[in-house]
Amino acid sequence: MAQIKPSLAKGTRDFSPLEMERRNYIFNTIKDVFRKYGYQEIQTPSFENLQTLTGKYGEEGDKLIFKILNSGDFISKISAEKFATLHSNSITPLIAEKALRYDLTVPFARYVVMHQNEITLPFKRFQIQPVWRADRPQRGRYREFYQCDADVVGSESLLNEAEFILVYQEALSSLGLKDFVIKLNNRKLLAGIADIIGKPELLIDMTVAIDKLDKIGLVGVKQELAAKGFSTEELAMLDPIITLSGSNVDKLATLKEVLKSSEMGQKGIEEIEMVLAYAQKLDANALPYIEVDITLARGLNYYTGSIFEVKTNEVSMGSIGGGGRYDDLTGMFGLPGLTGVGISFGADRIYDVLLELDLFPESTTKTTQVLVTNFDQSTEDYALSLLQTLRKNGIASELYPVAAKLKKQLTYADQKKIPYVIFIGAEELSSGMLTIKKMITGEQEKMAADDLFSYLINTADPN
Amino acid sequence: MAQIKPSLAKGTRDFSPLEMERRNYIFNTIKDVFRKYGYQEIQTPSFENLQTLTGKYGEEGDKLIFKILNSGDFISKISAEKFATLHSNSITPLIAEKALRYDLTVPFARYVVMHQNEITLPFKRFQIQPVWRADRPQRGRYREFYQCDADVVGSESLLNEAEFILVYQEALSSLGLKDFVIKLNNRKLLAGIADIIGKPELLIDMTVAIDKLDKIGLVGVKQELAAKGFSTEELAMLDPIITLSGSNVDKLATLKEVLKSSEMGQKGIEEIEMVLAYAQKLDANALPYIEVDITLARGLNYYTGSIFEVKTNEVSMGSIGGGGRYDDLTGMFGLPGLTGVGISFGADRIYDVLLELDLFPESTTKTTQVLVTNFDQSTEDYALSLLQTLRKNGIASELYPVAAKLKKQLTYADQKKIPYVIFIGAEELSSGMLTIKKMITGEQEKMAADDLFSYLINTADPN
Repeated sequence: MAQIKPSLAKGTRDFSPLEMERRNYIFNTIKDVFRKYGYQEIQTPSFENLQTLTGKYGEEGDKLIFKILNSGDFISKISAEKFATLHSNSITPLIAEKALRYDLTVPFARYVVMHQNEITLPFKRFQIQPVWRADRPQRGRYREFYQCDADVVGSESLLNEAEFILVYQEALSSLGLKDFVIKLNNRKLLAGIADIIGKPELLIDMTVAIDKLDKIGLVGVKQELAAKGFSTEELAMLDPIITLSGSNVDKLATLKEVLKSSEMGQKGIEEIEMVLAYAQKLDANALPYIEVDITLARGLNYYTGSIFEVKTNEVSMGSIGGGGRYDDLTGMFGLPGLTGVGISFGADRIYDVLLELDLFPESTTKTTQVLVTNFDQSTEDYALSLLQTLRKNGIASELYPVAAKLKKQLTYADQKKIPYVIFIGAEELSSGMLTIKKMITGEQEKMAADDLFSYLINTADPN
Repeated sequence: MAQIKPSLAKGTRDFSPLEMERRNYIFNTIKDVFRKYGYQEIQTPSFENLQTLTGKYGEEGDKLIFKILNSGDFISKISAEKFATLHSNSITPLIAEKALRYDLTVPFARYVVMHQNEITLPFKRFQIQPVWRADRPQRGRYREFYQCDADVVGSESLLNEAEFILVYQEALSSLGLKDFVIKLNNRKLLAGIADIIGKPELLIDMTVAIDKLDKIGLVGVKQELAAKGFSTEELAMLDPIITLSGSNVDKLATLKEVLKSSEMGQKGIEEIEMVLAYAQKLDANALPYIEVDITLARGLNYYTGSIFEVKTNEVSMGSIGGGGRYDDLTGMFGLPGLTGVGISFGADRIYDVLLELDLFPESTTKTTQVLVTNFDQSTEDYALSLLQTLRKNGIASELYPVAAKLKKQLTYADQKKIPYVIFIGAEELSSGMLTIKKMITGEQEKMAADDLFSYLINTADPN
């Protein structure tokens, strides 16, 4: 077998034990909150039939879907004459009928349609799985990354939206974040703005431009809108909307006035007010985290009602979550008229935020709690029985697997971040008093084995 | 967007909420035991560079690796003239440079080599991730399935083998299995048998034939061995070995006698005895689960020492676990001389076993504990505040999201297996006494809200 210098595929990552514990800490915290709000976990396969995915993510998205080469003699059906007439796009469906999951939403829509006779509406599911995109890898952008979604389908109630705000608030607070904002907008409100301007056909252009306010400023947005065909009068009308400020109540009052001629706009305002009212009744403490943000469009074409985005103010970072309501989630698979609303946590970014703010608790490190030393054959029998008693008491423990120098064993404990080392030598064996060393402080204590168990159960991290 | 009748890719599965909870129950039970024995979780990417995987699984295995089509204009580099000279095997490396993980062992070997400066030997890791194989799907065989592995590299100590036996025993017992056997063999012992027969070059043929004893019987095995070139005398010598019986001690005594002229064979027996001795010292209760089985070869060429296989006697099912020791795990990636030993749990089969034996605990269903009914606007404010107080007390709860008929709400609770329903109507609101219905029995009780919380905390499943 030829030797190969090992390397990772471009844009992919290994996760070490420490990274895994930290990732699990984030996922478990979010899962607990999802469950508390009635969401249940599902999983869908890593690959789908290619036709399930193509055409759902726009032309650019289609290019970024990883296709899986058919197995067997996939090429024999293509003659050299035919080959000469093909290009990469036209040959792909001939040699690849499967593709890797690009997001969790489309497979979820497929799931709902295929399992419509088993599920009870409203169906509240969460899903935490990797997705794959053939993006050019760069700092913070990977070709394999996890999405962490919760959605409910089959319920129009805006209570769902309010609960998602609480899910964000509770999960992020549990992770130790303090200063974050949950931005709320409504697509109908944006449509209402287009309405009063009289250019509904430019709605997408308008939201895309408004979305850039942070980056290019009011002048830039207006330049872009002018280039798209908005007149000076229309831009003047938009002005108070784009520069809207004050409390949520202030903003909504201004909007009501500006949009009074647009039924659609009024409906959007009403929906936002209803979401805020529900959130307040559920937990008034969540209100300060919510910010009505008319510039929030998330560049997405498929939201039809509420739009969410979450940002932290503690670290400079893009959004760490987002979502919204989309009518007709399942229409693409032949089940029309089912409304859905969902949110997503940006787990990779949250990881970076917690790391930067030093918010990972020490106790996320679910490593071995105790290393029992191994010096010679004569103490091994005692050590083995002690070892197993520790484990029976729920304490994750290891015996160093061979007799070795003390330094080597301590280095092992140190590098694996094992907090306690128990020494068993001839002296310990004859006196019945074991020495326990607390690695972080270097302190050593002597105690009988029975006292040791209760000492460790009371002080060691639960595993 | 054209409508597509949704379907799953061949050989893949969706997992419903109930299936997910049960799968998580199995994985969490196994993970807890892995951790208790000092194993730490890692993850590797779903796809690797194709050259990392090819040549590691034999010719048949290579065919079953799913290759990922290069993105972009992958075909333009191939002229029609060149194309005419290519077949599927020779074109694959030109258009696919990545491939999906086929098992967890090869990516782990790559991990160890790439991270050799960060990890401390012995390195004990576990890994639970899906793998993909382009097998023909059939009952119980999928193209995407999870492997659940623990391995230690860099330690020759047979304590590791003994601990793996305890890991099996503890994990399977925790899952409720009672009657299972952990089969133990040693490749050196098999080599010793080939030694005394004088045909070491036929070792693989011999182990493959011996492995079929259960299926084709002694006569069949002998016929197969004769066809491979074993003489009548040699087959007579093999006879007592293939039909070995009695306790582990009996078997080892017979083997010692038969293999007395083979140094390799004696070494194999010694290793088995050492593993048994370690297991006994750790926990004598594990011994009855261990069966020395000379026919165990697992058809695998790369084990060099201990070989494990686990079977349940409660259900007719293939092996539910297996593993062994392999010298030079990482040699293929340029780091020679590192020994490894590992085991694997067959999670899909264990799932089927637990299902057939009805061993999934009711409490694995981490569904919503309480549904609060929704009859009209007037009770909604009270319901919302109650709902959030339930959640703050750690009780997973839902409010039915719109006012609806009682029957509809009870059907929802029933189908989602929510154990408790709290009624809030005009009467409850005025009296302050809430009605709680226990769905499984139909019993109803009235109690004040405060009593309700403690009632639910004490009786409901913890989430």
